[in-house]
Order: sequence, then C-alpha cells, then structure tokens
Amino acid sequence: MSGLTVALDAMGGDFGPQVTVPASVQALLQYPSLNVILFGDQQAITEQLSLLNQLKHPRLRIVHCDHVIANDTRPSQALRRSQGSSMRMALEAVAAGQADACVSAGNTGALMALSRFTLKLLPGVDRPALVAAIPTNTDHKTWLLDLGANVSCDADTLFQFAVMGAVLAEQDLADKPRVALLNIGEEEIKGNDLVKRCAELLCESPEIDYIGYLEGNELYSGRADVIVCDGFVGNVSLKTSEGVANLFIDSIKNAITRNPIKRLVAKWLFNDLFISLKRLNPDQYNGASLLGLRGIVVKSHGSADIAAFSNAIGEAVHEVKRQIPTKISDRLEAVLLERHY
Amino acid sequence: MSGLTVALDAMGGDFGPQVTVPASVQALLQYPSLNVILFGDQQAITEQLSLLNQLKHPRLRIVHCDHVIANDTRPSQALRRSQGSSMRMALEAVAAGQADACVSAGNTGALMALSRFTLKLLPGVDRPALVAAIPTNTDHKTWLLDLGANVSCDADTLFQFAVMGAVLAEQDLADKPRVALLNIGEEEIKGNDLVKRCAELLCESPEIDYIGYLEGNELYSGRADVIVCDGFVGNVSLKTSEGVANLFIDSIKNAITRNPIKRLVAKWLFNDLFISLKRLNPDQYNGASLLGLRGIVVKSHGSADIAAFSNAIGEAVHEVKRQIPTKISDRLEAVLLERHY
Repeated sequence: MSGLTVALDAMGGDFGPQVTVPASVQALLQYPSLNVILFGDQQAITEQLSLLNQLKHPRLRIVHCDHVIANDTRPSQALRRSQGSSMRMALEAVAAGQADACVSAGNTGALMALSRFTLKLLPGVDRPALVAAIPTNTDHKTWLLDLGANVSCDADTLFQFAVMGAVLAEQDLADKPRVALLNIGEEEIKGNDLVKRCAELLCESPEIDYIGYLEGNELYSGRADVIVCDGFVGNVSLKTSEGVANLFIDSIKNAITRNPIKRLVAKWLFNDLFISLKRLNPDQYNGASLLGLRGIVVKSHGSADIAAFSNAIGEAVHEVKRQIPTKISDRLEAVLLERHY
Repeated sequence: MSGLTVALDAMGGDFGPQVTVPASVQALLQYPSLNVILFGDQQAITEQLSLLNQLKHPRLRIVHCDHVIANDTRPSQALRRSQGSSMRMALEAVAAGQADACVSAGNTGALMALSRFTLKLLPGVDRPALVAAIPTNTDHKTWLLDLGANVSCDADTLFQFAVMGAVLAEQDLADKPRVALLNIGEEEIKGNDLVKRCAELLCESPEIDYIGYLEGNELYSGRADVIVCDGFVGNVSLKTSEGVANLFIDSIKNAITRNPIKRLVAKWLFNDLFISLKRLNPDQYNGASLLGLRGIVVKSHGSADIAAFSNAIGEAVHEVKRQIPTKISDRLEAVLLERHY
C-alpha cells in the first residue's frame, strides 16, 4: 500500500461494523491516498462490505480479531486481558509502523490506557490529553482539552496540554494560537489553585500567546483558539454542551415535524437556520485526538453514525499529513529548554 | 409592615437601580404580601421610582447606603471594607430580623463571604452552596449545586449539598427527590476520588434517594431532581449551557429577524417552538440561592433584566414561605444522627 494508512477498530462503538465499515468506504472515496486496515470479526465485516458491494476494495484490508473490549472493561483489565482484541491490534499496527494512525469508537478508558501502553508517551509529556475541535460563532473552530483522559492533574500537566493544543491549532491558523484557561471567572483572583498556578506558567512562556481566563459561556465565542482545563471539567462541559444542543434540536424538530406543512414551510423559510444549527450538531465535529503519544490515535463518539465516524477518520488523515506528534515533541523540547535557561 | 419582607441590594448587577427598582415594583404587584426594602443610593433609586410614578408605594421603603461593592472586589477585601455598602446592609437587615431574605445581583464572591459572615452557617453545614433550578425536557425542573460557592470541596461537603438540595427540591414534589452526582461516566468505576467517596456516603444514607452518576449530557434530561457537583464543575457547566443556549437563540433570531415576512410567518407557524425555546432561556430561571445559611440569600445574574431580576425576588418569596433554612437544619440533624447510630 502506498499513501497513508489508518488502522480501524472495526468493532468499537455502539454499532460496530454497521457503522465503521460504511464509514471506511466513505472515507476511502473522500481521500484517494488513504488505505484502511479493518481490525475485527472477519465475518461481520465481510457481511457489511458485501452489502456495499465493496468486497474487493483495493485500498481496504481486514485483519481478523477474535475479541472485543467491552464498554464496561476497566482500563486496568484492558491492559491485562486485551491481547488479540480489535482495539489493541489496531494500536499495535501503529506501534509497528504498519499504520500511521488508529481510529476507534470503543471504550475511552481502555483506548487511553492501551494507547499509552503500546505507543508510549512523547518525551516531555506526563500524560496524554484528549482534544477535540468545537464549533464557534466565528469562522474558525476552537480546540478544547483535556476532555477526560485525566480526571485530575497538576499545573505542569495543564501547561503541557496548552503547548500540545497550540501545536494542533496553529496548523490551520496564520497567527499564533490564542490560548486560554477555562475558569469560573475572568479576573485574576478567581479559580482554584490549579488554574492559578498554570496561569503563572503560561504568563512566563513567550512561546505561548496566553490570553487569560475564559468562563464556560465563552467556550463557543471564538475568543480563544485553544482552551485548556482538566479532564473532569472538560468532559462535563463538552457533554453538557451536547445535552443543551440536543435539547434545542429536539425542540425544533418536535415543533416542525409534527406537521408536514409546517415542515415544508420551515425548510423553505429557514434554510440558513438549519445550516447553522447543523454546524452546532456534535456529530459534525466528531473525532477527538489523544495528544502526547508517539503515534496518532483518534477517538470517535461511541454513538457516532456513518457520517460522524467518517469525520473521525478524516481527522486522523489530517493529523498524519501534518505530522502532529513530531511537531508536539519539537515544541515541548523548545519550551522546556526556554524555561530552563 | 405585615407579610414578608425582602431586603434588596438595589445597586448590584450591571444595571443597578435601572433594573432592580422596576423589578421590585413588578414583584410587589405579583406578591400582595411582599414588602421590599431597597438598600442603595437614595437619589438614584428615587429617580427610578419617580419614572414609574411609584414614589409612595406603601410596601416599599428605601435605606440609603453611600457605598457599593465593586465587581472586582475580592471576598477578603469585601469582608474588611464593606461597612455601609448596599449589599452588606441588606444582609444585616436579614441578620437583625428586619427582613426575611436578601436578593442581590452584585459580586458573587463578596455576597457569599458577607452572607456567611453576617448570617452564619447552619449547624452541620461546612460550607454554603449556590443552587439554581435548571429547565429540563420534562415538566419539572432540576436543582443543580454547587454553582461556584466552593472551588474545591471534600466528600462530606458534597454530601451536605445533596441533603440541602433534596430539601429544596422536595417542596415541589410528591415523591422523594432523586439525587445524582455529576460525573464523567455512569459506571461505578468512573470519576475522581471526590465523587467516588461521596457516592459511598450517599449509598449509605437511607434518607436520600440516590440514583447514581449522571453525565453532562443528562443535566437537562429530567432524570434527577437534584444534581450535585463541586463549585468549579457546576459553574463551568451552567455557564457552558448558557453559552450554547445563547448560540442557538442568536442563530434562530438571526435567521428570523433579518426578514419581516419570515418573522411573521415564523410566529404564526411556530408559536409552540418559541414557547419551548423561551423555557430554555437562562433568564427564565434566574435566581440562585445560597443554601446552608441561617437566612435566605438569593443571587441574581449580574446581567439580569427586569423580568429576570423579578424572578429572583420571586425565588426569595418562595423560600421564605417554605422556611427552607429551618427545614435544612432539621434534615441535616436527622441525617447525621442516623449516620451516628
């Protein structure tokens, strides 16, 4: 295979091959240089490929795995008992250089533990972080991290998250990314010791364009390109956003779909509204990345549909092309040297 | 004055008397047994009353205060230099028994510190908590706490929050309130030490109908009547919700108001939609309460408009009628006794 290769955990997520296989075929169409290796139950995968009449796709191959990591498996159990599982074999393909990135919609805790175990951390990184792009009411997106890889962390770890997030964000920007800390007030005196200490570190670092604290209501304002918080806060705030977005989308759907005439009139009248609401749909920005590893790992929502899972594959392709891990490693080395002298 | 009396910090919030005075007049109309004492600059208040032609309202009186606590005043400064300020004098009126509750849209940190200093904590309470009702996609609301009174706390404090939230919630319910902890996963193994330890305490307490962990996307699902978290997480998640809600409301307003014909057709067709969107507007549920004190204190949004500030006064009236502090005190005593034997 030439071009770039993504190793897919075909069994992960709420729907397994029913979503991961059609999403792979869709991504292969979209990216002509992409190769996909599907790790999972050969029969289940073949059935889906056959439905799509894609049994002999030249850029797709299957590696059979007997075993799947369940959603309730603890990370520690996953480390001990994951040999031969689709998730672990996909990660091992990246570690062995057979693939450039791994994508999975499986158990998040297991994926983080196994990623760290098989791929290892980059030098200068204490913990990996889960990062995703969120939409804003401006033209560009904001990267939010950590989204749940670390339930508690210290100021140095948060600082590393800021550096890693900035590397990811600057790929799409002309200027230095604006980095903010998520806090419960914008004034310097607000917040807990963790954010205050991290703010000091960020202020001292000329490599980073630190713009201060942002509150939850500014997450989607586009005021920052990177917003940093610990994994508990990041996870709650991202999931809260999804909850509110779904509440709105459901209200609108209910009001409209109950009546077919209303539906038609609504489509005619508010086409631009639906486009902008679609932009706020969490599926549109599916694909959270695990940063800080010696390899690329993208985590999809468990409940992702075909389009959303295909977006996650697209995120992996993007990161492979931009060589994110190498860039993070170089930047961290520069920042730490700078702090040292 | 007969009936119940609310002491208002007339100077707090982004708009001061321009909002607090008309909101008081509106609340006086709505609650015939309500008396209001406005604490603040006599001249500014009188000007507003004169505009409303309410200079001689029989249930409204003014207590002049020279001084206002600024929004960037630290809690520690507020404690030292707040004598004679509108916020402190309103709280002192409650402490002295001249009023039954205090409402302020001023500096949150200062209000919490001064409330604790002037009113004192109830026995069995380690820290006060800020609680608010949030809308759900069911018929009843959910109480979320803590919303920022405590940037970090221990499991016992979270447990007390659960008890206090349950007392507030059960006033409107036929059954025992369902209490949940906000976490980053629903499985028992998920989360940080704080929530795990608090979950143990809640499981051991037969007084509380503890239903387990809920994730951020379930905040507005109506699955729980009370959701408990620390103040950092609660504040970020509430403000994040406001950010997302405003993003949606702005998108809808933009799509509709740009064109007057669309606006008319939209109103005619989607009246039920607008009602349900209005329900999700943060102003509708303005009025967060400080629980755990020997008195009733309601915090309004700083940016509240007249209707929103009037809702905050309504919340204070509701809590006075239900004698919330006494009920919290009795319940905590019962729960702690139960745990002791």
